[in-house]
Amino acid sequence: MRRSIATVCLSGTLTEKLTAVARAGFDGVEIFENDLVASPLSPEEIRTRTADLGLTIDLYQPMRDVEAVPEEVFTRNLRRARRKFELMRRLGADTVLVCSNISPQALDDDALAAAQLRRLADLAQDFGIRVAYEALAWGRHVSTYDHAWCIVEMAGHPALGICLDSFHILSRGSDPKGIEDIPGEKIFFLQLADAPLMAMDVLQWSRHYRCFPGQGGFDVAGLLRHVIHAGYNGPLSLEVFNDVFRQADAGRTAVDGLRSLLALEESVGVLPLPAPVIPTGVAFAELATGDPQPVSKLLGALGFTRAARHRGTPVELWEQGAARVLVNTGTATRRSGTTLAAIGLESPDPAAAARRGEAMLAPTLPRRRTAHDVPLESIAAPDGTELLYCATSRSQLPSWTDDFEPLGDAPRPASGVTAIDHLALTQPRHHFDEAVLFHRTVLGLRPRDTVEFADPYGLFRSRALSAPQNGPRLVLNLAPGPTEEGESRAQHVAFAVDDIVTAVRRIQGAGGELLRIPANYYDDLQTRYEFPDGELETYRELGILYDRDEQGGEFRHCYTATLGHVFFELVQRIGGYRGYGAANAPIRLAAQRH
Amino acid sequence: MRRSIATVCLSGTLTEKLTAVARAGFDGVEIFENDLVASPLSPEEIRTRTADLGLTIDLYQPMRDVEAVPEEVFTRNLRRARRKFELMRRLGADTVLVCSNISPQALDDDALAAAQLRRLADLAQDFGIRVAYEALAWGRHVSTYDHAWCIVEMAGHPALGICLDSFHILSRGSDPKGIEDIPGEKIFFLQLADAPLMAMDVLQWSRHYRCFPGQGGFDVAGLLRHVIHAGYNGPLSLEVFNDVFRQADAGRTAVDGLRSLLALEESVGVLPLPAPVIPTGVAFAELATGDPQPVSKLLGALGFTRAARHRGTPVELWEQGAARVLVNTGTATRRSGTTLAAIGLESPDPAAAARRGEAMLAPTLPRRRTAHDVPLESIAAPDGTELLYCATSRSQLPSWTDDFEPLGDAPRPASGVTAIDHLALTQPRHHFDEAVLFHRTVLGLRPRDTVEFADPYGLFRSRALSAPQNGPRLVLNLAPGPTEEGESRAQHVAFAVDDIVTAVRRIQGAGGELLRIPANYYDDLQTRYEFPDGELETYRELGILYDRDEQGGEFRHCYTATLGHVFFELVQRIGGYRGYGAANAPIRLAAQRH
Repeated sequence: MRRSIATVCLSGTLTEKLTAVARAGFDGVEIFENDLVASPLSPEEIRTRTADLGLTIDLYQPMRDVEAVPEEVFTRNLRRARRKFELMRRLGADTVLVCSNISPQALDDDALAAAQLRRLADLAQDFGIRVAYEALAWGRHVSTYDHAWCIVEMAGHPALGICLDSFHILSRGSDPKGIEDIPGEKIFFLQLADAPLMAMDVLQWSRHYRCFPGQGGFDVAGLLRHVIHAGYNGPLSLEVFNDVFRQADAGRTAVDGLRSLLALEESVGVLPLPAPVIPTGVAFAELATGDPQPVSKLLGALGFTRAARHRGTPVELWEQGAARVLVNTGTATRRSGTTLAAIGLESPDPAAAARRGEAMLAPTLPRRRTAHDVPLESIAAPDGTELLYCATSRSQLPSWTDDFEPLGDAPRPASGVTAIDHLALTQPRHHFDEAVLFHRTVLGLRPRDTVEFADPYGLFRSRALSAPQNGPRLVLNLAPGPTEEGESRAQHVAFAVDDIVTAVRRIQGAGGELLRIPANYYDDLQTRYEFPDGELETYRELGILYDRDEQGGEFRHCYTATLGHVFFELVQRIGGYRGYGAANAPIRLAAQRH
Repeated sequence: MRRSIATVCLSGTLTEKLTAVARAGFDGVEIFENDLVASPLSPEEIRTRTADLGLTIDLYQPMRDVEAVPEEVFTRNLRRARRKFELMRRLGADTVLVCSNISPQALDDDALAAAQLRRLADLAQDFGIRVAYEALAWGRHVSTYDHAWCIVEMAGHPALGICLDSFHILSRGSDPKGIEDIPGEKIFFLQLADAPLMAMDVLQWSRHYRCFPGQGGFDVAGLLRHVIHAGYNGPLSLEVFNDVFRQADAGRTAVDGLRSLLALEESVGVLPLPAPVIPTGVAFAELATGDPQPVSKLLGALGFTRAARHRGTPVELWEQGAARVLVNTGTATRRSGTTLAAIGLESPDPAAAARRGEAMLAPTLPRRRTAHDVPLESIAAPDGTELLYCATSRSQLPSWTDDFEPLGDAPRPASGVTAIDHLALTQPRHHFDEAVLFHRTVLGLRPRDTVEFADPYGLFRSRALSAPQNGPRLVLNLAPGPTEEGESRAQHVAFAVDDIVTAVRRIQGAGGELLRIPANYYDDLQTRYEFPDGELETYRELGILYDRDEQGGEFRHCYTATLGHVFFELVQRIGGYRGYGAANAPIRLAAQRH
C-alpha cells in the first residue's frame, strides 16, 4: 500500500519536512495548511519541489466548520472554499479534508449537513477535487465515524467521501467493525495514529499525546484490518502530533514513522518482510575508554579475567562464566570518558538478522572487524549504541572470538558472575518511544509495561524489553536531569550471580568499590518486609538492595561505582522474579549523586 | 500564620531541599518519606540540621493503605506503624499523614475504618504523635473530605484529626463550605496546592500538574477562608509536585512557593502587606549592546532621535513621541549580543513600589544610577530583566531623566511612533508560572488567559499581563526550540503607531529593514476576511500582518529584523482590539527562521 505522512507530524520548515519525508522513503504527503501559509515557497514551487522529491500530495488539510450552518454563513463558507480549491489547483492536490463542525454556530441537523456538503462537493468537482469528511472526536454534533458516514451517504455525491482517523475512532471507544459496512471506494482517506491509554479530555489527548502506530495502546492493526476488508486502497497516512515530535529532528521522526507503518502492515499481513531473528543472548558488552586502567581494576575486582586480545584493534576480552566484556581503547579519548559503546547479540542467523534490520530501516554500520575474515554485521540503535549480530563458538558459523588471540594471564578468582543479566540504556527524552519501537521491530524483543516514578531530580521512566523465551534483556531508562540536554546519564551492565552475598564479599575482598546505600533505606525496608534473622543486617553491611514481587519472587542487587558514563550491577533473581528493582532506582540515583 | 512546605515540592537531595526552604523564609517543613529514605543523614542528623536551619518538622508523610482492612492485615499495618512512629520520634516529628486507603484490599466499611484509625491513634498517642487522616481524591472508598471527617468523628480519638488538601477537595468539585462544620482543633493539617483546570484522570492531574496557589484555576483563597472560619490555626503548607518543579532549581522554587503563600494570605485578609503600586506606563526600554552601530541605525530608521546621554555611564536616550529607548554600551560585550536588559516602569510612588517588591520577595538590585542623586529602585524579574521604578518629569519626584544631558542632535523625521505598546519577554520553560505570579503579585498586573498553539518548532505558549486601567503591558512567551536549553529566543519591544501604513513607508524610506512575510499568508488572509479594495495588497506589499477579534476590533502589525536577541514590532490597534496578534506568531517565528 502507498505510505504517506502529514507535514504536521514533523518539526521545521515545509522544505525541511518534505525533504525528511522523501529521504525516509514515504510515497506521499498530506500538506497541513499552516505549513503552507508560513512557507516562502509559492504553491507552484511546493508542487514542483514535492514532485522533484518523488512525492505525491495526497491530501490538503484541514477545512473547518463548513457544514450544518445557517445559509448566510454557508454562503461565506463556499466563497472561502472556492479560494482554497483555487489554491489546491495551484498546489496540485486533489483531495481536501473537511473536519466535522466544532463551532457553536453548527446546527444539529443531519439533512442540512448532507445538503451543504453536497453543494460543497459540487463546487469541488468543478476543480477536480474530492472532499473527505471526517468526524472529529470532539465535533459539536458529529463525533463518530458512523454518523459522518450516514451524512455522506445521505448526500450521495461522487466527489464526497469519508476520511477515517484511527485516533478519532479509537479514542471514542467506537467499534471499528462497522467500517466494513462502508463501500471501500467511499473511504477517500485513512489517517493513522496511536496514543497511550489515558483518561483525559479527548482534545488535549489528541493535541499533545498522539504517537505512531504501535507506540501507544490502541489496536490500530485491528482497525486497519477492517478498513482493508472494506476495500480501501488509498494511502496509509500518518497523522501524529505531540509535544515531543514538535521539538525533535524531522529526519529521525520521519524514519520512526515509516518504521511504525511497515510494522503495522506486516502485522496485518499485507507486507511480507524478512522475519525478525530474535537474539538468544548477549555475546558481549563493549566498553570504549580512553583510560583503561580503572576499568581493568574494577573488572578484575569483579572477578573477571583478561582472556584474549583482538588481533587487529586495541580491544581486550574479559571473561567470567558466560559474561564477556570487551574493553576498546581504540575509539575513545580520555576526555570522552568510559561509555557502553556496543552490544554483541547472540544471533541464530546473523545474516538474516541483518536483512531484517535493513528492512526495518535500522542504520547499518560499516563492518569494523575483518581480521581472519569474520564478518560482523552491525546496526546503530536510536541512542547510538552499536548492535552486532554475533555467533559465539557455534558450528557452521564463524565465531567473532576467532579474531581474538588468547592471553596467558592467570585466571582471577571468580566472584560468581554467571552471565550478563541485562543492559540498561539511558535514552534521550525525544527518542524513548522510537527506541522501544526499534528494539521491538528490528530485534523482535517484547516490551513490558512502562514504569514511572519521581526521582529526586525529575520524572523517571523505564521500560524493559526481552525475548519471548530466553535471550537478552534491555532496560530503557529515561531520566531527564536538571540540565536536560547537558547531563548524560550513565548506562549500565548488570551481571547475574547465584549468590550475591558471597559475590559481594569476594568483590570487596578484592578491593572492588560498591555504591553506598543510606542506612535509612534499611530502616524503611524493615517496615515493609519481614526478613529471616540477620538477613537485613547482611544487606545493610554490604549495601545490597532488595525487592519482592507480588508472587513472592525476590531480587537482590547492588551497584559498583561509576566509571565515566558506565557502572555495573550485580543481580540475584530468586523464585522467578522478573523485574529490575525499579522501586529502588530513586535510592540508587540519589546515592550516585552523593 | 506559620508557613510550611513539603520536601516533595523541591528538586535535589534532602539537604539541598532543607537549605532552600530555610533560605526562602519558611517556618517549617513536611518531610516526605522517600526523601528521608534516600538521604545519607540519619533521622537524628536530619532533626539537628532542620533545627539549625530554624525550621520545624510539621508533618511526616505519607502512611498509606492503613485502615478498613481485614484484621490480619491491620495487625501487620500496626507493626509497620510502630516502626514509623519510632523513626518519627528520632526525627522529632509529631504529626503523621495517613492517606485514605487506595488498595483493592480496602473494605467499604466506615465503622471498621473508624475503629482501626482509633487503634492507630492509640498507638500514636503513646509516642506523642498525632494522626492526620486525609481523603485522597482517588481513595478507594473514602475520597471526599466530609467522608473522611465523618470517620474521624466516629473514631472520636484526641490523637486523630483530619488533614485537608485543597487539591483533593477542589479537584473533586466538593463544596469547601462544609469545612466550617469541622471543629478547628480537629483540623490537624492543611496542605495547599492549585492546578490548571483540566479534564483529566485526577491521579495523573495531581501527579504531573499541581502548581502553587494562584498559579492554577482553583479558588484556593475561598477554601482557605472556610478553613480559617473553622478555627484552624496550624501551618499553611504547600504540597505541590509537577514535572517542571522536579527539574527546577530548589532555591527558586521555594521562593516562588513562599511568594504564592504570601499573596494567598494577603488575598484572604490575614496578612497586611504594603499594597501594590501599579505602574502607570513604561518609562523606557533599555537595550544592552556591545555593538551599538546597528542598533542606532535601526532606531534612526524607525524615526527615533538620539536626545540625551547619561552623565555617568555610557547610556544614550532615544526618543519618539512618548516612546523612549535607552542604549547601554557599558555592560554588554560584543559577543553577548544585543539584549533587552531593563524596563523602566512609570511608578506613582517608586519608594512604596520598592517596599511592595521587597515584601513579595523580589530580588532587589543595587542602585546603579546615582549621579545628581536621583535614586532608582530596581528589582530583578525571574527571567533576569531589571525592572526600575521610575518617575518621568513629575513634580514632587526626582526624574530619572535629570541624570541625562541633552544632545544637540538634529531631530530625525518621526515615523509616527507614539509610545511603547507592550514588551514581549521570552521565559525559560521552568519559570513561566513563576514569572506570571511575580508580575501579578509584585507589580499588581492582571494576567489574561494563556494562549497555546503549535509553532513549527514546538508548542508555543503566551500569556499577557496588563494594568487594570492604563499602564504597561507585558507578554510572556514560552517557546521551547529544538535545543531547549541552548537556543535563547529573542525578546521584543512593540511600539504603538496611529497609522502603520504611513509608518512602514517612512521606515522603509529611511532604510529600515522589516521582516518579510510569505505571500501565502496573504492568500490565506483573503480566504478568512473581506477587505476594502486595495487594503490586502498594501499589507502584502509592506509585510503587515493582520488580526481581527470577535468584536470587530482590528490589529495591524509588523516586525523589524532581529539584532542579537532583540527585535521591534510596530502595532496599530483599531476599534478596541485588546490582543497581541497571537494567531500570527507562527508566521512570525517561521519568517524569523528563514
